[in-house]
Amino acid sequence: MKRYLTVTSLDAVHDLLRKEFACTPSVEKITLEHSVGRITATPVFARYSVPEIHLAAMDGITVRSEETREAGEQHPVTLAHAMRVNTGNVVPKGYDAVIMIEDVWVDDERFIIRKAAAPWQHVRPAGEDVAESEMVLPSKHRIRPHELGALAAYGITTIEVLNVRVGLIPTGSELVAHGTRPSPGQVVESNTVMAAAMLSSLGATCIQYPMVKDDPALIRAELWRAIAENDMVIISAGSSAGTRDYTADVIAELGEVLVHGIAIKPGKPAIIGRVAGKPVIGMPGYPLSAFTVVREIVTPLLRCHGLFVNEPETIEAEITSTIHKEIGTDEFVLAALGRVGDRWVVSPQSRGAGVQMSAVRANAYLKVPSALEGFEAGETVPATLMVPRADAENALLITGSHDPVLDYLADMLGNNNIDLHSTHAGSMGGILALKKDECHAAPMHLLALDGSYNTEYLKKYLPGEELVVLCVAGRQQGIVSREGVTFNELPGHRFINRQKGSGTRMLLDFELKRAGIDPSSVRGYGREATTHLAVALAVKCGEADAGMCVYSAAKVFGLRFIPVAQERYELVIRKSNMDDPRITALCDAIASPAFREILDRLGGYDTKETGVRRALP
Amino acid sequence: MKRYLTVTSLDAVHDLLRKEFACTPSVEKITLEHSVGRITATPVFARYSVPEIHLAAMDGITVRSEETREAGEQHPVTLAHAMRVNTGNVVPKGYDAVIMIEDVWVDDERFIIRKAAAPWQHVRPAGEDVAESEMVLPSKHRIRPHELGALAAYGITTIEVLNVRVGLIPTGSELVAHGTRPSPGQVVESNTVMAAAMLSSLGATCIQYPMVKDDPALIRAELWRAIAENDMVIISAGSSAGTRDYTADVIAELGEVLVHGIAIKPGKPAIIGRVAGKPVIGMPGYPLSAFTVVREIVTPLLRCHGLFVNEPETIEAEITSTIHKEIGTDEFVLAALGRVGDRWVVSPQSRGAGVQMSAVRANAYLKVPSALEGFEAGETVPATLMVPRADAENALLITGSHDPVLDYLADMLGNNNIDLHSTHAGSMGGILALKKDECHAAPMHLLALDGSYNTEYLKKYLPGEELVVLCVAGRQQGIVSREGVTFNELPGHRFINRQKGSGTRMLLDFELKRAGIDPSSVRGYGREATTHLAVALAVKCGEADAGMCVYSAAKVFGLRFIPVAQERYELVIRKSNMDDPRITALCDAIASPAFREILDRLGGYDTKETGVRRALP
Repeated sequence: MKRYLTVTSLDAVHDLLRKEFACTPSVEKITLEHSVGRITATPVFARYSVPEIHLAAMDGITVRSEETREAGEQHPVTLAHAMRVNTGNVVPKGYDAVIMIEDVWVDDERFIIRKAAAPWQHVRPAGEDVAESEMVLPSKHRIRPHELGALAAYGITTIEVLNVRVGLIPTGSELVAHGTRPSPGQVVESNTVMAAAMLSSLGATCIQYPMVKDDPALIRAELWRAIAENDMVIISAGSSAGTRDYTADVIAELGEVLVHGIAIKPGKPAIIGRVAGKPVIGMPGYPLSAFTVVREIVTPLLRCHGLFVNEPETIEAEITSTIHKEIGTDEFVLAALGRVGDRWVVSPQSRGAGVQMSAVRANAYLKVPSALEGFEAGETVPATLMVPRADAENALLITGSHDPVLDYLADMLGNNNIDLHSTHAGSMGGILALKKDECHAAPMHLLALDGSYNTEYLKKYLPGEELVVLCVAGRQQGIVSREGVTFNELPGHRFINRQKGSGTRMLLDFELKRAGIDPSSVRGYGREATTHLAVALAVKCGEADAGMCVYSAAKVFGLRFIPVAQERYELVIRKSNMDDPRITALCDAIASPAFREILDRLGGYDTKETGVRRALP
Repeated sequence: MKRYLTVTSLDAVHDLLRKEFACTPSVEKITLEHSVGRITATPVFARYSVPEIHLAAMDGITVRSEETREAGEQHPVTLAHAMRVNTGNVVPKGYDAVIMIEDVWVDDERFIIRKAAAPWQHVRPAGEDVAESEMVLPSKHRIRPHELGALAAYGITTIEVLNVRVGLIPTGSELVAHGTRPSPGQVVESNTVMAAAMLSSLGATCIQYPMVKDDPALIRAELWRAIAENDMVIISAGSSAGTRDYTADVIAELGEVLVHGIAIKPGKPAIIGRVAGKPVIGMPGYPLSAFTVVREIVTPLLRCHGLFVNEPETIEAEITSTIHKEIGTDEFVLAALGRVGDRWVVSPQSRGAGVQMSAVRANAYLKVPSALEGFEAGETVPATLMVPRADAENALLITGSHDPVLDYLADMLGNNNIDLHSTHAGSMGGILALKKDECHAAPMHLLALDGSYNTEYLKKYLPGEELVVLCVAGRQQGIVSREGVTFNELPGHRFINRQKGSGTRMLLDFELKRAGIDPSSVRGYGREATTHLAVALAVKCGEADAGMCVYSAAKVFGLRFIPVAQERYELVIRKSNMDDPRITALCDAIASPAFREILDRLGGYDTKETGVRRALP
């Protein structure tokens, strides 16, 4: 069993990168048309003056100003020298002013004026815009789209820009190419797709090499080729210390391993090596580990190679839940960031390194520094933006019980340029978030002993608070199974349950009691899954015969669904937030006929009361 | 003479665009690899669950947890069912946990454990990342680079994105193609290059049509073709009311002109028309007018066509000089924005619509609203960013007398990621900016009666202030001419002077007095140009025989230069700003051998005292 001998801190890794790999950047000559977003390697100079000669700045006549000196309202002057010019025409030698056509009288092809012209009036002097050999852009300048106009006008057709060529080698016998549906145990090669997109957007040129099986000889051959063709190489996967992890060995054979194991999470099994003087990065296989290594290790390495990359913007925000972690590791946690009232709040998302969806859903991330044991809920911490600030300003934070219809609401709100971010915290989590004013709206379905929904809980946990309760839909919960198990047939089947405290668990217990079924007679009652989909999947995979979930989850996997009860899925909003345009748009979307159509199409929802509001207290 | 009958306000234009052209966006199907930065037209759903089946999350053995229940430190259990698995391997049916390899003892190919395994420990459950048919991206979402990994992993190979096809027709008989050196009176066609780069970066697809001469029949034919092939068309130039401006007529023939003349500056002669139901924009020919029309008219029009474009960020800043304008027109002024001490300041730049360099140099712009007569110096006004906020935070503001070496310093500072913005205000303007703490450093060369530079002026205008004066270089001023005119030969030649108050004018007067030459004997003494380059150009073009300027200006145009005097070009900085990392970097650059080499190469500078500092008082 191989082990990491030492784990290097992120700060030490950054020092090492600067020390070992700070080198003169590569330079690539590209045509102007392809230069937007690229970074100039050398200053850019104007090839000639613009304009090169004095031009008329108005439609009119060009004159010699000294001939106009005597002209006045009562003293018209017929000009000896004058020529018709349009805007942009050359002002000929000897002429030094332009008179607008509306101030000119024409008599028998001679021009008469009644006002003197000041020297150089309405003349666009040579060099007004730029002088020959003037510096137009300094080096290290990221070219903006509108600058292409000036560059074209100044005779610049090619530009030397910074470049870093990055070779990407995907390894792993389990890999199939993007576009192929993976068989069980196969994995789509997506990490180099992600790395290429991220690094290209920063101005690097990426070459993707073919997928290589877990065979040291093959990996070695590909690495050797990539080193010859690039400024740096990333080997995807195989960086850990398992029996089939060859990346470190191959780097050591061809060069040296500088670091194996970095004190970051996710991303710990990363490698930094050097072959033929060029950096080789071993990128871990878990998608979010790979993402973190690209962002925290490869991006700084691009900077060491001279490619200027701005640090992303951070916003100080109040964190909504506690993060615990080990001291000695920098941990990166994806998050949903938004403005509630007049303050920024940030909700950490799932920390599983395999959950790529967290990175799709997140608009920010948190760095919990090495020296800390974590962040406490309520602390103000810096959140790093993953979207333009304006998008974060428009984020709508929904915290509570998740339902797929929230995704459809997110889709509808896109028309208003609002980003809906849903944090899955369960119904009680939603009540808590609402109490602490950490979200804009909390979706919930909490069943009271009297069979009513939500009201009793809101009265208990948010007494006296002014709230608006908006019905999203009646939602069917039922028994999911492969073979049509009914509620009363649960005893005798292998069951998969939801966790304690979830609305579905409460509903099950309520219905079991009403039907007089003893929970202990249900085999697997103690086995808990945390989402509707996890329940349906366990049934789909044959690990359980039945479970309770919403219709949509059963439908995803083509399973049978026998309704048991209808619950009230409602959205609770503080009355003080009802004027927020994000909330207005959300309420409008829920009340719209389009949303009812979606619910009807998805199935499992009763739309009779969709959009109905009540106020509390 | 054609006239604008009415000029429409910008707000009215925006209303009209929304009313007349709000339409369903075009949809284009593209491959995943090309999707970064594009906006989803429809929601994107996962093709299958990831993972589709339970996988090992660790290297070790997979077991049936019930068989492990009795295991303990003193009670090893030999497992009846167990299989070796690596991370990512399938957990077979019937197995429900993984034990890490380091907790396993192997004896004769049988596995022994000393600790019970919890059900589902170290198992990555099916659907953990994403469930089949789950919504991955809503519509109207701008695709971020890192999302390509998730999309690839979820089986997504093509994406429907929003698209607006924009046809660009350059018109004008004076045009030559980009890459051709224009003869006098010719102009490089650059406005559609600029428009295409800007609109493409917002997600539009631009087609550039060939250049068309000023001939209504030809323009008509090209417009008809472009209308058939695009969602909107921009006709570049010919939108004014001159004798060769056919854009409005052609639009009226094929459709209708909705607006001719918009109350904006620059950009007034813009046209909004409709042909076959599609918008046609007449874009004025002056580069900054064209830029403004693309930004203020075409970009909102993209929004009407469903293409989501974020509003740029604004920053409240103190304006350093007064802007006067007419009521009734929205005026846009390019500006240099930066942070001096703890406040943002913004300096308006040249307002000439032909000076494209202003847009290259600017990092922000100001909108002076229609209802106002302008902004007063010192007012706090919103400045719209043209760069990422981080770049504006790093802006180094230099206000005062300009010299080309400032461009070279800007180039050197690029290595520190500092943006040097130089506002040309003359030496006295620099003193004023320094007094009001509106810049980081002020370059100047102010000659006192005793022949010393700068000190007397600083004592007079900034009495008692703690300042650091840093010598950039000794700078030669001399007589520029085609034929080698000397200072004493000035009487009898046609002269071009600099404006009153400029350092060069003061130096000329000082030297004339010393030489006993009467200014009135110098023909053209009263004729003023405002820059060194303008003086050299006037000589180059034969409008004058001689002028006084710095060596670099003479060199640009290949003119003769006879030195007259050496002046001290110095940079003045408030002592309190000396610790600012931007100032430190600036001082380091000036003191560097690389900078001396540049000065020596450019010629006309004395580097003996370059980098020498003195303190005041």
